[in-house]
Amino acid sequence: MTAAAPAAEICEVTLPDTRRWERKHLLGLQDVSAEEILLVLNVAQCFKTPNGAVRRDKLPFLKGKTLVNLFFENSTRTRTSFELAAKRLSADVLNFTASTSSMSKGETILDTARVIEAMGSDFIVCRHSCPGTPDYLAAHVWSSVINAGDGAHEHPTQGLLDMFTMREHKGRLEDLKVVILGDILHSRVARSNIWGLTKLGAHVVVCGPKTLIPPTLYRLGVEVCYHLDEAIKDADVINLLRIQLERQQKNLFPSIREYRHLYGLTDKRLGVAKPDVLIMHPGPVNRGVEISDEVADGPHSVITRQVTNGVAIRMAVLYLLNQERERLGLRSQ
Amino acid sequence: MTAAAPAAEICEVTLPDTRRWERKHLLGLQDVSAEEILLVLNVAQCFKTPNGAVRRDKLPFLKGKTLVNLFFENSTRTRTSFELAAKRLSADVLNFTASTSSMSKGETILDTARVIEAMGSDFIVCRHSCPGTPDYLAAHVWSSVINAGDGAHEHPTQGLLDMFTMREHKGRLEDLKVVILGDILHSRVARSNIWGLTKLGAHVVVCGPKTLIPPTLYRLGVEVCYHLDEAIKDADVINLLRIQLERQQKNLFPSIREYRHLYGLTDKRLGVAKPDVLIMHPGPVNRGVEISDEVADGPHSVITRQVTNGVAIRMAVLYLLNQERERLGLRSQ
Amino acid sequence: MTAAAPAAEICEVTLPDTRRWERKHLLGLQDVSAEEILLVLNVAQCFKTPNGAVRRDKLPFLKGKTLVNLFFENSTRTRTSFELAAKRLSADVLNFTASTSSMSKGETILDTARVIEAMGSDFIVCRHSCPGTPDYLAAHVWSSVINAGDGAHEHPTQGLLDMFTMREHKGRLEDLKVVILGDILHSRVARSNIWGLTKLGAHVVVCGPKTLIPPTLYRLGVEVCYHLDEAIKDADVINLLRIQLERQQKNLFPSIREYRHLYGLTDKRLGVAKPDVLIMHPGPVNRGVEISDEVADGPHSVITRQVTNGVAIRMAVLYLLNQERERLGLRSQ
Repeated sequence: MTAAAPAAEICEVTLPDTRRWERKHLLGLQDVSAEEILLVLNVAQCFKTPNGAVRRDKLPFLKGKTLVNLFFENSTRTRTSFELAAKRLSADVLNFTASTSSMSKGETILDTARVIEAMGSDFIVCRHSCPGTPDYLAAHVWSSVINAGDGAHEHPTQGLLDMFTMREHKGRLEDLKVVILGDILHSRVARSNIWGLTKLGAHVVVCGPKTLIPPTLYRLGVEVCYHLDEAIKDADVINLLRIQLERQQKNLFPSIREYRHLYGLTDKRLGVAKPDVLIMHPGPVNRGVEISDEVADGPHSVITRQVTNGVAIRMAVLYLLNQERERLGLRSQ
Repeated sequence: MTAAAPAAEICEVTLPDTRRWERKHLLGLQDVSAEEILLVLNVAQCFKTPNGAVRRDKLPFLKGKTLVNLFFENSTRTRTSFELAAKRLSADVLNFTASTSSMSKGETILDTARVIEAMGSDFIVCRHSCPGTPDYLAAHVWSSVINAGDGAHEHPTQGLLDMFTMREHKGRLEDLKVVILGDILHSRVARSNIWGLTKLGAHVVVCGPKTLIPPTLYRLGVEVCYHLDEAIKDADVINLLRIQLERQQKNLFPSIREYRHLYGLTDKRLGVAKPDVLIMHPGPVNRGVEISDEVADGPHSVITRQVTNGVAIRMAVLYLLNQERERLGLRSQ
Repeated sequence: MTAAAPAAEICEVTLPDTRRWERKHLLGLQDVSAEEILLVLNVAQCFKTPNGAVRRDKLPFLKGKTLVNLFFENSTRTRTSFELAAKRLSADVLNFTASTSSMSKGETILDTARVIEAMGSDFIVCRHSCPGTPDYLAAHVWSSVINAGDGAHEHPTQGLLDMFTMREHKGRLEDLKVVILGDILHSRVARSNIWGLTKLGAHVVVCGPKTLIPPTLYRLGVEVCYHLDEAIKDADVINLLRIQLERQQKNLFPSIREYRHLYGLTDKRLGVAKPDVLIMHPGPVNRGVEISDEVADGPHSVITRQVTNGVAIRMAVLYLLNQERERLGLRSQ
């Protein structure tokens, strides 16, 4: 048997008109319009196959471009998702991590970013514990900066993939009752969800212990509720947050056991939500704390589907930012 | 002088009929048949060039596929070998390591594997200190799982590359006298060698201190011998194991000095083996402990050849598993 | 809108005649001739675009080759620069780091290099704290070895990129007054600069505290000067070195404050240099110690340009070494 190389693949994707997109960076969803969000979701849809997977045929749109993951907090999930998204658009990817970089030799973050850029980066994906770091970089570099999480501020691609997954299953975002459940105070995922969902007409309810919900949150146009059963009544979507024990400075709830008792999502409690409620979680999941095994693995759960959609969303964001870069004639060193 | 791109390379490999291969995972050699083992060796042979090197012309067989190295124990050698094998078949490769992954945030190993798979993995190469971890993953994911070492259980691709190297030099495996020497008790390499070699008709002798050989090992069809000179008499192959000091919980031999005195392989001792005996070692080598410099670097040593063959074997395993996946129409997210 | 794959790119580069290059390794600039240095600079020039960036069109010259970064000291900058250079010539890249490799299991460095080579490396880029390590490896392996910094000995690609950047801005190297400023004693960058620049006819002045300049340095054909103002008078180029606090065993100057007072480069001090003086620094920069913000970010600074040129220089070195390998018919396993 002789196996020859397959014929050259035809990479054809029909994409929406992207001229309305005029952004070079994606720093948060706070000042992104509903129209822009829908454009990202629609482009992401084009990168999926009919069976729900992400296209893997090495689309050529970022050929010759370089994406650098500049992560100052541990992450495998988000970093890998960007890496895969970039590679599927034919870009090169470099991973910088704080521990091995010259940051430990006293270099400023801006000097590090300038070095990365001078080597030829087009996209810098940045995660940092300090809110505003991606904005600071974006103001000083030619590369396109994507916020992959800055403190408790924003994590826009997570917000977008969550909305994409909701729309994929519900057909719309308007008038959906979406409950965001857990540690709202420390969550950049909650914030990006709130900005995006309220713009698209969803009814957002946040729920958790009083100590984990900022008192002024209602100003963002969301309903605040401290009782789980009340919050999830007739919910279309429940988006759970991770109890981030490593991020809390002080004890903001009596114990894990008490948290589970009051806010842990179980099959029994799910009864008051809509029969076709979606269960979402950005991961990593603390099984037996914020969610029971039977809910995490049950028929309502779309947790792994979110991960798949994350790759498509990041491909869409990279595609759109790159389109704008080409219109502007931008090019890093 | 103007240098233009070379003409498109023609990737033609003549491969054996692989329809007899019906495995989706490679978890160990215990229940792989002699016929299947020979098929892997024969496919690996096709990936070598006439001068003994491995083909590097980017064969297209795994184009669009993604291999993820999921390693919970330190390894550069094995991980890199899989990475190179995958890249030479045109696959994308991602490296997950326990220290930077969300495992440290309390995620279960199965949730980690499901996240990897949801991003679009086709192959998960897993190393873990706990025996059976690859089997557990294989039972729950769509990706093909390859065991890259699970505790003291199995390390099947090492067993296959050892057999490949023996056959390459001796022309056969049947009736070869193969001595496996060292810490048998803690060695997954020993176990995979034993399963494979006995199936293919080799005469396997295990040798080492009584404290490092499980008392029931003879049941696997091998001869047990506690004296080095007796064991290696007329040997065709001596496969040394690493003294894995980091894996032993308690002192199972009096001292390194005593071990070297009784079991360290030197040129002088080699005299009783066959004149064309092969010296093998899975690495990393402890020079001056289990093997002397003059043996490690001598004319009988094929230690670096084993490393080269490891890439060819892993290409063959990936090729065969992928053929079966395509027959089954399998595809991860 | 339907976006199809772009037409196959035409990779044409007009390169100088490289038959004068007969080196397989690049271990230092001490015994490289002026003619060879100029050849590297001229080839690097061909890899730049008219606007000063580095070509990114995946030149095919190293297709099917594998470069391994074997780093025993932390580095992101240099390692990444080699990684990008190799990828832009279509090579595969593997990163080995000491912490995760089998070196920690007691393997010798030569055994590690032989394993890397047996897997199929063509280029080994080595950084090690021990001077001479790359020479030692080069004497024992088939791969081409590139010294990426060995103790305080040499860092030849840094020397080459510095010379390239000087020539790019000044049009020549001959008769330029180049001041190397700082911790000369511990600097491999200083040494590679000195060997290269003196061969090409530059007038090299080294300047720093007496405790940080080896007393016999004048033998290398450089002028030694302990006073900053005197040294930089009429300078064409000032190449600053990093105060490498982590490398000094004992206090060789009274304090950081005193160092900055005596040798820190500020705008005011720059007045005695030529009006078009170039300010260079290999990075990472200690702002406020050896250099002030206004100098680092001022109009004379070409610090980020050096980083960009570093990629072009490493592409040129890889290209030339590979040409010689092909002439010799060399091929690793």
